[in-house]
Amino acid sequence: MQYKKLTNADVDNLKGICSSERVHAWEEINEDYSHDEMPEYGYYMPEAVVEAVSTEEVSAVMKYAYENSIPVTPRGSGTGLCGGAVPIYGGILLSLAKMNRILELDEENLTVTVEPGVLLMDLIKAVNEKDLLYPPDPGEKSATIGGNIMTNAGGMRAVKYGVTRDYVMALTVVLPSGEIVKLGSRTTKNSSGYSLKDLMIGSEGTLGIVTEIMLKLIPAPKEVISLLVPFRDLDSCIDTVPKIIKSKAVPTAIEFMQKEVIEAAEEYLGKKFPDKSSDAYLLLSFDGTSREEIENIYEEVADICLEAGAVDVFISDTEERQESIWGPRGAFLEAIKSSTPSMDECDVVVPRNKIAEYVRYVNTLEKKYGVRIRSFGHAGDGNIHVYLCKDDLDDETWKTKCKEIMKALYEKAIELDGQVSGEHGIGHAKIPYLRGSIGDTQITLMRGIKKVFDPKNILNPGKIVG
Amino acid sequence: MQYKKLTNADVDNLKGICSSERVHAWEEINEDYSHDEMPEYGYYMPEAVVEAVSTEEVSAVMKYAYENSIPVTPRGSGTGLCGGAVPIYGGILLSLAKMNRILELDEENLTVTVEPGVLLMDLIKAVNEKDLLYPPDPGEKSATIGGNIMTNAGGMRAVKYGVTRDYVMALTVVLPSGEIVKLGSRTTKNSSGYSLKDLMIGSEGTLGIVTEIMLKLIPAPKEVISLLVPFRDLDSCIDTVPKIIKSKAVPTAIEFMQKEVIEAAEEYLGKKFPDKSSDAYLLLSFDGTSREEIENIYEEVADICLEAGAVDVFISDTEERQESIWGPRGAFLEAIKSSTPSMDECDVVVPRNKIAEYVRYVNTLEKKYGVRIRSFGHAGDGNIHVYLCKDDLDDETWKTKCKEIMKALYEKAIELDGQVSGEHGIGHAKIPYLRGSIGDTQITLMRGIKKVFDPKNILNPGKIVG
Repeated sequence: MQYKKLTNADVDNLKGICSSERVHAWEEINEDYSHDEMPEYGYYMPEAVVEAVSTEEVSAVMKYAYENSIPVTPRGSGTGLCGGAVPIYGGILLSLAKMNRILELDEENLTVTVEPGVLLMDLIKAVNEKDLLYPPDPGEKSATIGGNIMTNAGGMRAVKYGVTRDYVMALTVVLPSGEIVKLGSRTTKNSSGYSLKDLMIGSEGTLGIVTEIMLKLIPAPKEVISLLVPFRDLDSCIDTVPKIIKSKAVPTAIEFMQKEVIEAAEEYLGKKFPDKSSDAYLLLSFDGTSREEIENIYEEVADICLEAGAVDVFISDTEERQESIWGPRGAFLEAIKSSTPSMDECDVVVPRNKIAEYVRYVNTLEKKYGVRIRSFGHAGDGNIHVYLCKDDLDDETWKTKCKEIMKALYEKAIELDGQVSGEHGIGHAKIPYLRGSIGDTQITLMRGIKKVFDPKNILNPGKIVG
Repeated sequence: MQYKKLTNADVDNLKGICSSERVHAWEEINEDYSHDEMPEYGYYMPEAVVEAVSTEEVSAVMKYAYENSIPVTPRGSGTGLCGGAVPIYGGILLSLAKMNRILELDEENLTVTVEPGVLLMDLIKAVNEKDLLYPPDPGEKSATIGGNIMTNAGGMRAVKYGVTRDYVMALTVVLPSGEIVKLGSRTTKNSSGYSLKDLMIGSEGTLGIVTEIMLKLIPAPKEVISLLVPFRDLDSCIDTVPKIIKSKAVPTAIEFMQKEVIEAAEEYLGKKFPDKSSDAYLLLSFDGTSREEIENIYEEVADICLEAGAVDVFISDTEERQESIWGPRGAFLEAIKSSTPSMDECDVVVPRNKIAEYVRYVNTLEKKYGVRIRSFGHAGDGNIHVYLCKDDLDDETWKTKCKEIMKALYEKAIELDGQVSGEHGIGHAKIPYLRGSIGDTQITLMRGIKKVFDPKNILNPGKIVG
């Protein structure tokens, strides 16, 4: 596909479509738009940045780009980790950050309708004020809800509540041609043709641009309690997870963490973690309609942990105490990032009874390759974040070792019936691993679908299916 | 598309692929295969019926059909209501009914893996024995789980637990070419390319044939309680539903029913319903981990109902009492069917705060057209089943009136931001209404997707996108 390079006339035309102060070209463009939170995967400057404020503007920009064969990369906050919102072919970067209004909070249907640029933290606040809950809980609260939908973001509470997909009721989407379609509706049930809505979720801005979103909410739980459970070693810690699942207790979240990561978070935040005497920890939360309801469940889980070798069980039932644990948990990524000049990451997901085996394997790689590896993650749903730290390795050694370790990490995940990405997506950085995981037949189907939606391959080209 | 008519040689070849006692041709074919539960939509005999018993057999049959351009219609129990499993172009009817093994019940991951021909009633029984629950609860328990997935079946418990889609973790699928792909995995999270799994769910056997299914289970609730709530009239009955939702109580199910339908069920079953003194009823159920937990919630809901004009609130807390209500509820469709020589039905879904408006509209049509109309359904999720009864109308009048009423029913649903089908699907009978509802752009996208999966249009042709 030959793309047109932007000219001054194109920029003027874009300024005619949107207002001129929301169109920035060439040297006026902020360098931040050239990468996401993983600049390790490369810097790519767009030729123009357009900040749209309405579905109609997005549609008009797409029509123009379609007619002129100009690539368009949609972008929210740019907090991605796989280069999904990075304009690797230049062209127009279409920012949806200014489309950040909460349009409706419908208490009769328990839905909220928002623009894609609403930040997760603002959505959480707005629905909490009405005693409602948007259950998905990705760690990065400054991500946009549009970005969350485009990666089918997961987060901490997936154990009990599922992922973003489970809460998307309807989407207004601008297709690559500029046509506007409404997918799904204000109804829970739907059996009316292929679910284009579900195809759009997790498509990383390659099939259409989401400009309006209706989400399902649930009544906010009245009580939330967390347990911090120290274990003498990682093995006994992680081996406890399938026992908890099997007990049929349903925690809201089950996270695991190791001492080294906690220490990094303490240093990063300048705050002390409540306990640091042990090598490995489970962090669980429970929610429900009453204290009594939760108590029965968490007492059972506490017993399971103690029987499985836990050193102690710390109960956090005040907001302050919970913040003292979940605050550091939320800072793990930033803490690891700040501890090394460069890093690489992987976001595999494995069946939850395989997580112990997987983490043990990760630890053998650290020793085998002499590269510092930190991992933490969502033990309850099998989603692990593994970070390779460059530290003082020279560029060549780092590059070679990174490649080998990544290959090993993905191969092991696939061997255990896992997936390449649980919640971060594929972007352009993980394409070879996706192909290795799902095989040529599925890649061919995905490419075919991409072509149906985007015959000129102008929308976020070079992502997911290459 | 020109399809090949089957010859004796083709039948012999199919007998070579499967065993000969599982291949039936022409006059050996049972007439039941020519229709589903709505023979009103026409009788279409296949040229051969093949009863497959493995993924490999399905694959081999598809390869043969693909090479020879023979249409193939996959089928489970044939309990559909839109002609989805009816071979309107003849060819091979591929029955999956004999693929009915439960392959694995994994208590560490809370999953069950089954073949597509497992009946819903058998799945329910198997998971209940392990104190687990498969939450979707479609009324037709002799449907296959494969059929449920192909229509994204909904059922009673969607208010609290969602629909079939929400519980499908992985699918083994035979593509029209005969290739076998595995979509999804034993993990909750996934952000690894377009969700082909979700595209497959609800595709009514037009994109691939599902031959193995992994479903997510949840711990079975320990307590279940039902409330039967009589109201003096339909208006006060249905107007109560949004009030319940708004209260943030979360019932498992909210059904509504009218006296006439209850009477039909009594006659059909030869059993008395607990109460019949009122015109309209809400039937609610609640589940949870303890009696106390549910009590708080249902007492609140009972108060809301009484304030909204309920005549009484009957609590059913024993299995026997619950059966006396839910038994008749489960027989509504059969009861209406047996009361008339012919009928037509629609399965629209509207936002749940619009259900009162919709049901009132349905009732005006009965008067306007002089056709007996019965409706009941899932008030809590906006999914209503409307049945037009022919009774003693002559064929011509019936046909004309049916057409007009159906048109009105679908137009009203779309006006209220609803969908053509909540859980029954499109099949071949509802195609014009789907097009009218979602428009040409979406139909074109769906046709494009169909072509990507099935370039020769041999798999269940003439369904959904025509």
